[in-house]
Amino acid sequence: MIIVIQCTDQVGLVAKISGLLANENLNIVSMHEHVDKGENMFFMRLEVTDQPDDVSLEQKLQQLLPKGAIVRVNPSPEKKAIVMVTKEYHCLADILVRNHFKTLGASVQCVIGNYTNLADICRRFDIPFYHVPFENFKEEAESSILGIISRYEHDYIVLAKFMRVLSPGFVSRFPNQVINIHHSFLPAFAGANPYRQAYERGVKLIGATAHFVTDELDEGPIIAQQIISADHSFTASDMVKAGKEIETAVLAKALRMVFDDRVFICKNKTVVLE
Amino acid sequence: MIIVIQCTDQVGLVAKISGLLANENLNIVSMHEHVDKGENMFFMRLEVTDQPDDVSLEQKLQQLLPKGAIVRVNPSPEKKAIVMVTKEYHCLADILVRNHFKTLGASVQCVIGNYTNLADICRRFDIPFYHVPFENFKEEAESSILGIISRYEHDYIVLAKFMRVLSPGFVSRFPNQVINIHHSFLPAFAGANPYRQAYERGVKLIGATAHFVTDELDEGPIIAQQIISADHSFTASDMVKAGKEIETAVLAKALRMVFDDRVFICKNKTVVLE
Amino acid sequence: MIIVIQCTDQVGLVAKISGLLANENLNIVSMHEHVDKGENMFFMRLEVTDQPDDVSLEQKLQQLLPKGAIVRVNPSPEKKAIVMVTKEYHCLADILVRNHFKTLGASVQCVIGNYTNLADICRRFDIPFYHVPFENFKEEAESSILGIISRYEHDYIVLAKFMRVLSPGFVSRFPNQVINIHHSFLPAFAGANPYRQAYERGVKLIGATAHFVTDELDEGPIIAQQIISADHSFTASDMVKAGKEIETAVLAKALRMVFDDRVFICKNKTVVLE
Amino acid sequence: MIIVIQCTDQVGLVAKISGLLANENLNIVSMHEHVDKGENMFFMRLEVTDQPDDVSLEQKLQQLLPKGAIVRVNPSPEKKAIVMVTKEYHCLADILVRNHFKTLGASVQCVIGNYTNLADICRRFDIPFYHVPFENFKEEAESSILGIISRYEHDYIVLAKFMRVLSPGFVSRFPNQVINIHHSFLPAFAGANPYRQAYERGVKLIGATAHFVTDELDEGPIIAQQIISADHSFTASDMVKAGKEIETAVLAKALRMVFDDRVFICKNKTVVLE
Repeated sequence: MIIVIQCTDQVGLVAKISGLLANENLNIVSMHEHVDKGENMFFMRLEVTDQPDDVSLEQKLQQLLPKGAIVRVNPSPEKKAIVMVTKEYHCLADILVRNHFKTLGASVQCVIGNYTNLADICRRFDIPFYHVPFENFKEEAESSILGIISRYEHDYIVLAKFMRVLSPGFVSRFPNQVINIHHSFLPAFAGANPYRQAYERGVKLIGATAHFVTDELDEGPIIAQQIISADHSFTASDMVKAGKEIETAVLAKALRMVFDDRVFICKNKTVVLE
Repeated sequence: MIIVIQCTDQVGLVAKISGLLANENLNIVSMHEHVDKGENMFFMRLEVTDQPDDVSLEQKLQQLLPKGAIVRVNPSPEKKAIVMVTKEYHCLADILVRNHFKTLGASVQCVIGNYTNLADICRRFDIPFYHVPFENFKEEAESSILGIISRYEHDYIVLAKFMRVLSPGFVSRFPNQVINIHHSFLPAFAGANPYRQAYERGVKLIGATAHFVTDELDEGPIIAQQIISADHSFTASDMVKAGKEIETAVLAKALRMVFDDRVFICKNKTVVLE
Repeated sequence: MIIVIQCTDQVGLVAKISGLLANENLNIVSMHEHVDKGENMFFMRLEVTDQPDDVSLEQKLQQLLPKGAIVRVNPSPEKKAIVMVTKEYHCLADILVRNHFKTLGASVQCVIGNYTNLADICRRFDIPFYHVPFENFKEEAESSILGIISRYEHDYIVLAKFMRVLSPGFVSRFPNQVINIHHSFLPAFAGANPYRQAYERGVKLIGATAHFVTDELDEGPIIAQQIISADHSFTASDMVKAGKEIETAVLAKALRMVFDDRVFICKNKTVVLE
Repeated sequence: MIIVIQCTDQVGLVAKISGLLANENLNIVSMHEHVDKGENMFFMRLEVTDQPDDVSLEQKLQQLLPKGAIVRVNPSPEKKAIVMVTKEYHCLADILVRNHFKTLGASVQCVIGNYTNLADICRRFDIPFYHVPFENFKEEAESSILGIISRYEHDYIVLAKFMRVLSPGFVSRFPNQVINIHHSFLPAFAGANPYRQAYERGVKLIGATAHFVTDELDEGPIIAQQIISADHSFTASDMVKAGKEIETAVLAKALRMVFDDRVFICKNKTVVLE
């Protein structure tokens, strides 16, 4: 059983929490905590053996902790995700494969794409695909997408190379729920065409960044980043090709962390208790 | 203040320890713990603010914990190290520089070398250098070295590219105190000439391993490892050259961890609470 | 158009080859060469624009080069591969996805598995799957597999987590054609259960190695290797899980290099002209 | 002997060059070339055995190649470097150690610092140190520095954590000769206080960039970049500390490449023929 706690910091919190769990005869298998001194915030993720009455444990922890504490005991063990894509297959296929073999940590409800070319791979994995063109009537498109989303349970919306900018109005409906993969080492090369920008600048590393989406384009809390080497022989299109491998890996890692309840959001940063 | 605990595992240990610290009005700044289930061992490293009476805190913790617990409050804040070398300068120079600028985490007492070529760099940093030839009379050499060591306080002996094999008798006098840098990704290429072995095998990565030295050659607990890429264009001597960079970095990292009281030894493995 | 050359080294080879191509009005787009001094061997991979008469160019190059030279102009531009698996899906699914989207660099002809659980994913991608149990009658199994292979064109046989040892007789039928992914940083942890071995040894890095298969188990020429970090908190099963990510990536990279005619074999090593 | 060529591209260049060398009975040990198609530029680095008459070989190559070709045969085999620093020791000490043991690839002529604290380490290595305060009278300071530089032969000026901005007038006197280490993964976090910026942004990787200095701050051609992982537990000051390791390594690598005549500059990018 997983317990996740986020609250203002205070002397003795660990003693209180671990004392309560010991009283309940729950054995702590793993415990990770972090204190953000600047923000005076406390974060903790616990794995305990045995399955007590979740509800009363959550209440007991709430009573123990500072006001405003967020406590989740056994946060939805099977997350539900909706995936949005444009044309590129690599992140989507990776997600569909993991979903199919039950190693994603969430179940994919449906895929929404603004092109049709990825409908086939979804069909092969028995996942509903919805085509919503996004070219001219963004408002209309977003409203169609909201309609589709509303038909499915969902904990997270994963932008798996969705190459359109969603409006702040759309994003604000899903706070801390939209995860994007950006094809650069943010904050370098935010915005459109990062590989072209990277090529022009002559960088020696190519990066990818998975982050939560907020109102500000490419400015949300970063979950995971990674890079691979590039050199002078890379054309912009070689960078795109090499970048795909790292995009797939970084998004996969970020989803693993999020779906496993390891990621906390604190202002514009994440705390990832691996 | 740092507190380090190693004992058999038991339900409620974290609650007990953090409860005691809260009672003493000590604020936990950082806490890392690990439980090795196979060995049923508990490891913890705490940083707390304020400086209580170390001795009584150590006793109180001892009383609280399972029999046989190892508790150290404020383990020697300035470690003392003796360095042994052969001919290569790179690890030694890195250690001397950090020592000179007080960023090593330990103070170097003296350097013992089986060649004379590194005497000069030691002299430049005002560190005593002792020349002990090691060719024919190993027993004699080891006994000279023991004599030198006995004249200095020392917590650790660092083999910074010391290319002779020390006898089990010698090593056993310094349990968990001798740290070596081996120029391969152990357990691959143990023993002599690892780069030649790596070259012959055509590996695509070159590694380095920092480990505690035990009776069995290159078999002690591993503290840190790292690799860099190699390719077909590397000669054995290119591998040596590239390897030096990584050897320096890995040994530096291992020493940082050890000197900062982050490394616990459990049978033939380490627990590194970073 | 790609030209691949492997021959004994000799002064003036580059001048001869590039002179001939200039005479034929072929513009060199990229040229990589390597000389193995120990073996006195010369390796070259060229990309040139335009499509001359392949056959006569191959003959002209042959006449120019030392006796015994291997010259291939436009080596089969669409490679054909047969994949063998046991139970794990990760490498296979990655190959099937790339194959499906035509980015593998080869076309998968069929999959042979000694369990049935991967038949479904093959069916979803319209790739024939053959079940050949391998438990008791290895000779019989190998003979069945040979029968299946003989029905398909094939340039390479990819062991994508095929966990049985093929007999030397089997392997010798496909010299330099069988590619395996081994789940360790070879030569460390050859043989069975490498993650268990790695766990027991307490290594701080987990590796994977793609290599050509020869008579000697896990001793063939290495094509690509990579590692990821591990630490004391990894159980043997965490190592398996983390290892899968790196196995998939390393095998994908090795196949990209091989299928793109970048890998030469020289005794027990590879030359990879990236 | 090393030969370095940079000229406009043309069909048959490799044939011409290698033909000439074959005529001169020079055996090519290693050859790296690159063609930048966008700029239509050709770059080549050759290592050949034997020592012919450098001057006439250079002339012969010039006659053979397109007008405006830059040809250097045996470019100054012992480079001379002047190092500028502020307060931090790590990059300087690494350079001084390599210089001392003749593995830097250049000889350090003197060190110029705008603080005095690094005078001591220079003295220990018998390298002249000049103190030029830089606080208020930048023009005056730069003129003092120019005076010092003029007294020494120099191929390169290395800014080894020199934390003041040099004026365009100063920089333009040393085109393609000033090398800087910037403590971020450029173009992210250009300008002052990159670690503070990185901390505020919550990045999961910390980078360092070695680049040639041009008029535009932090915008010159990038030579080498590298990163290390960071996480939520890093304070800004932890990032500084971790960053130092990578800064040292990246600058060392860049200098090795430059001093070994492997780096070509083409507009705002480098070609690094490793």
